[in-house]
Amino acid sequence: MSNCSSQLCGSADQEKSRTEQDALVEQSLAKIKNKFLVMSGKGGVGKTSVSVNLSIALAQQGYKVGLMDVDIHGPDAPRMLGLKDLLGMADNRKLKPLSFSENLSVVSIESLIVNKDDAIIWRGPLKISAIRQFIADVDWGKLDYLVIDSPPGTGDEPLTVAQTIPEARAIIVTTPQEVSLADVRKSISFCRTVNLSIYGLIENMSGLTCPHCSESIDLFGAGGGQKTAEAAGITFLGSIPFDPNLVSCGDAGISYQGKYKDSPVTQAFADMAEKITR
Amino acid sequence: MSNCSSQLCGSADQEKSRTEQDALVEQSLAKIKNKFLVMSGKGGVGKTSVSVNLSIALAQQGYKVGLMDVDIHGPDAPRMLGLKDLLGMADNRKLKPLSFSENLSVVSIESLIVNKDDAIIWRGPLKISAIRQFIADVDWGKLDYLVIDSPPGTGDEPLTVAQTIPEARAIIVTTPQEVSLADVRKSISFCRTVNLSIYGLIENMSGLTCPHCSESIDLFGAGGGQKTAEAAGITFLGSIPFDPNLVSCGDAGISYQGKYKDSPVTQAFADMAEKITR
Repeated sequence: MSNCSSQLCGSADQEKSRTEQDALVEQSLAKIKNKFLVMSGKGGVGKTSVSVNLSIALAQQGYKVGLMDVDIHGPDAPRMLGLKDLLGMADNRKLKPLSFSENLSVVSIESLIVNKDDAIIWRGPLKISAIRQFIADVDWGKLDYLVIDSPPGTGDEPLTVAQTIPEARAIIVTTPQEVSLADVRKSISFCRTVNLSIYGLIENMSGLTCPHCSESIDLFGAGGGQKTAEAAGITFLGSIPFDPNLVSCGDAGISYQGKYKDSPVTQAFADMAEKITR
Repeated sequence: MSNCSSQLCGSADQEKSRTEQDALVEQSLAKIKNKFLVMSGKGGVGKTSVSVNLSIALAQQGYKVGLMDVDIHGPDAPRMLGLKDLLGMADNRKLKPLSFSENLSVVSIESLIVNKDDAIIWRGPLKISAIRQFIADVDWGKLDYLVIDSPPGTGDEPLTVAQTIPEARAIIVTTPQEVSLADVRKSISFCRTVNLSIYGLIENMSGLTCPHCSESIDLFGAGGGQKTAEAAGITFLGSIPFDPNLVSCGDAGISYQGKYKDSPVTQAFADMAEKITR
């Protein structure tokens, strides 16, 4: 088990009562205009990459953005953003999010763990509690957008977000292949069951341009995202091509959009951010 | 919530006592020689694809193989194998696994759900119970290998397998990029914490040959799996190249190894199966 910062793993008697916490959750959420839950049926479709880059694109357009990583077992958002520090304490005794830029602040379980290679072996109830504290006990301040990056699937984490932030809207990320689309349909069924409104669907990794011969390669098929969105009657927010530089930037903790300003991927995220803020 | 076959969702009074179930688990496991838990830190690294193809390769070498899909929220194994039927009942009143071939039988929550697009919105305790029933109440019979495909991360599902099958050995799947390797280190930490022995590490999607110009493209970097295995002192079981045909076969529910008998990917799985059975 990992060494967890004491703010989050306080002993039972230190824990706030549920009603008290509910009030804190409400106070935090009242200062945030828009909440998006980024989810996917299948893992590895680039959900975190989309959350991170959409947050950067929104922040670059001048909006105040918070990125909350609720993937307890695979918290990759801080690594992709090059944020290695631990969370500190704000003046009001709340946890202070990490700052990627003036407009973008970030919270993740990764930023509460001293040894980054430790596994978080938590069953459901502890995860629920951590996610609620990410809202109640973090000094998010006033935000235009809160982007919540959840683990794949329809388990404890997205369910807790849906129950704690009923006004959140889901952005579903998929790759074009059928195995992923089948899981998207489960995500749509999840949202409808828990009354989470669906904002739209993004198709990621939709085609690669060979860096040697510039021919197009369909890694995971093509066009399945748009078709699935249309069949389910939800908005299609756009496609993002596969770019190996997005992988290497994520690995190095460098902002892809800063380094590849004129790339098709950067343009795709800017278009999406514009669509969202319109 | 989904319509679940009544065998698995029986009312509380129908449920067997824990001790009775423990005995059934023990009886089932006693007939299975080798148990492998296929896990990954990050989602979408091709864990299910590896589980499915490794199972096929082992079965093709003449071994009796069971594939148990414990990914409750994204159960893709039956779809990849083209198995659409629901589980039936065996003569001994146990659930009868689906049969992919004479040597390969398969169990998944997907094969207990009538509407495949329904989401399974279960919190931890129900998932634990389902996984235990997959062992206790399924007529696996005598097996040489049980391959268990778990969801990504270090949550309820792999933890339940580790606690229920202490003799299971972990096969960790990764792609070569740092973000995935960081999560592999969490998987290794998980295995050591719960005393699950690690059998080895597989690097998947390690390079693509452009179908147009035949040049090599590093989609997710290269070589990181071997380095991570060496650094952690665990066995490196080999690399599997990326092949878009593996994706399309999985989508269509067609056996890739049957269709592309002489491909590098088929060879890689045959080599791995040989290594395992040696």
